[in-house]
Amino acid sequence: MRYVLGIDGGGSKTVCVLMNDARQVIGRGEAGPSNYQSIGIAATLKSIQSAIHSAVTSMVTIEAICLGLAGVGRVTDIEVVKVLVQELQNSKLLPIIWDLQPSNIVICNDALIALVGGIGHDVGIVVAVGTGSIVFGRNHQGDTKRVGGWGYILGDEGSAYKIAVAGMQAALKSYDGREISTSLVESFKQHLRLTNIEDLIEVIYRRGWGVKEIAALAPIIDLVAALGDEVANKIIDDAVQELVKATSTVINAIFNHDSVLEVVTAGSVWRGRCKMHERFAASIINNFPRVKVIFPRSEPAYGAGLLALQKLS
Amino acid sequence: MRYVLGIDGGGSKTVCVLMNDARQVIGRGEAGPSNYQSIGIAATLKSIQSAIHSAVTSMVTIEAICLGLAGVGRVTDIEVVKVLVQELQNSKLLPIIWDLQPSNIVICNDALIALVGGIGHDVGIVVAVGTGSIVFGRNHQGDTKRVGGWGYILGDEGSAYKIAVAGMQAALKSYDGREISTSLVESFKQHLRLTNIEDLIEVIYRRGWGVKEIAALAPIIDLVAALGDEVANKIIDDAVQELVKATSTVINAIFNHDSVLEVVTAGSVWRGRCKMHERFAASIINNFPRVKVIFPRSEPAYGAGLLALQKLS
Repeated sequence: MRYVLGIDGGGSKTVCVLMNDARQVIGRGEAGPSNYQSIGIAATLKSIQSAIHSAVTSMVTIEAICLGLAGVGRVTDIEVVKVLVQELQNSKLLPIIWDLQPSNIVICNDALIALVGGIGHDVGIVVAVGTGSIVFGRNHQGDTKRVGGWGYILGDEGSAYKIAVAGMQAALKSYDGREISTSLVESFKQHLRLTNIEDLIEVIYRRGWGVKEIAALAPIIDLVAALGDEVANKIIDDAVQELVKATSTVINAIFNHDSVLEVVTAGSVWRGRCKMHERFAASIINNFPRVKVIFPRSEPAYGAGLLALQKLS
Repeated sequence: MRYVLGIDGGGSKTVCVLMNDARQVIGRGEAGPSNYQSIGIAATLKSIQSAIHSAVTSMVTIEAICLGLAGVGRVTDIEVVKVLVQELQNSKLLPIIWDLQPSNIVICNDALIALVGGIGHDVGIVVAVGTGSIVFGRNHQGDTKRVGGWGYILGDEGSAYKIAVAGMQAALKSYDGREISTSLVESFKQHLRLTNIEDLIEVIYRRGWGVKEIAALAPIIDLVAALGDEVANKIIDDAVQELVKATSTVINAIFNHDSVLEVVTAGSVWRGRCKMHERFAASIINNFPRVKVIFPRSEPAYGAGLLALQKLS
């Protein structure tokens, strides 16, 4: 048996899987965040080491490793992560015999490992929608295309953050008398224990809330939409249409209109009550009848493991 | 002659005018910001004192004062500003004999003084659009109505910040292949000296830019729109329509549809090259034929002075 590591490093946690060349997961571990651009190299190294330590419980020889990290794309990022892998190899803490050819070290962004984990191979499209959003595809020739992923100010259309902000804006417009009434007003008041919807200002600007805290309000809009509110449903439909447009752009860029292919929807937003997944799938299939929209078959760390295994063959 | 002070306290500067009961400005002074919620009470007091000091050059008796301050609206805010006025009266630094009845101290938000300064009296509507946006009106009965003013995350439709963000989003969507091409891409690259439009991420997220720095990019969209770019013009038209809708809501709330009234457009955004003021005026007059859209006749500090003078009569 030969062994590899697959690592999924994100802004909230790091996952590591130990996999053998029969694509079986032998061990799995989790640790804290590893987005080095925010938390620094040292903390990232610590999280990755800790995730590996939980995954690998007895001595093993590792012949390939794949790290899929949020925000890693440019050459300078990849150089930073290479140094990080070197540090791992120098570490005496892990029960690992490293046997890594440089070509067996794969460094990529988190969208690719989500694609490979979600579908089970490296051809198709991932529509990753959580706090942020990105659509990423890869065809049989190895051509890739990314749409979105520009962050909460410049993009992230369809994301939990954008849905939450649109929900609060709609509630305040309704309160102003600019838009039709919506039960979002009462829902925000109840959920955030506000006396008046004007106190949203207090919550959003004066409590030092960041993108994650705001994005965590998206389930309010989801629930109100599921209960039939017109304004909330329009927000969800707008989000879906943004994601359909981004996905269509990727299909048109690197596939043929009648290609048989799978689109995997990854991330928290797709599991809500208001059936975003179904709305998205219906719209995609309407435009591209031979495309199949699926939920992820496996997690991104598993996808990283598969990408590492490719290097052994 | 009797004398009053009018003070306009904002996020970038503080303006003070010394006015006599013939509505003449005798002195004028400027100082640093005085938005106490951001910079604190001590710094705000210093700015206001400094602005008064520049406006009042020889000994004078002040019988009324009006302070119009950004973000001041709730009862707790007004209590804070009252304490601040008490501190001013205790100060030995100013060449002022204070003769203030408590009822001659007017504390209000900056929208009201912009309305009064802009129109010359206290009936009408102000559409204040700079970094943020707010529409505020007051009718003959003294009823007021505010629409917007919810800040850069929750609202500020039509503001310089929102125009700048929409411009960058459109440029990136065009670059992704999601939208038609626009010369915004080249304009941002040139203006910000970017090798690639993807480097917008670097500028917006990693240089620690705030709302003001981003809002300062709005003139790029304005210029590109003035040169005829379709995407940039749609952004400007969308901003105008948001402001028309907000203004219409205020008219419908506190005026009659056929009221004769003036709407004053205040703030940096209205002075651009792409004729936002004309687009806005055309749309308003189309809906409300007896409304007149004007540029401000005087600055907000003058409006504060007029509100202080009202207390003497």
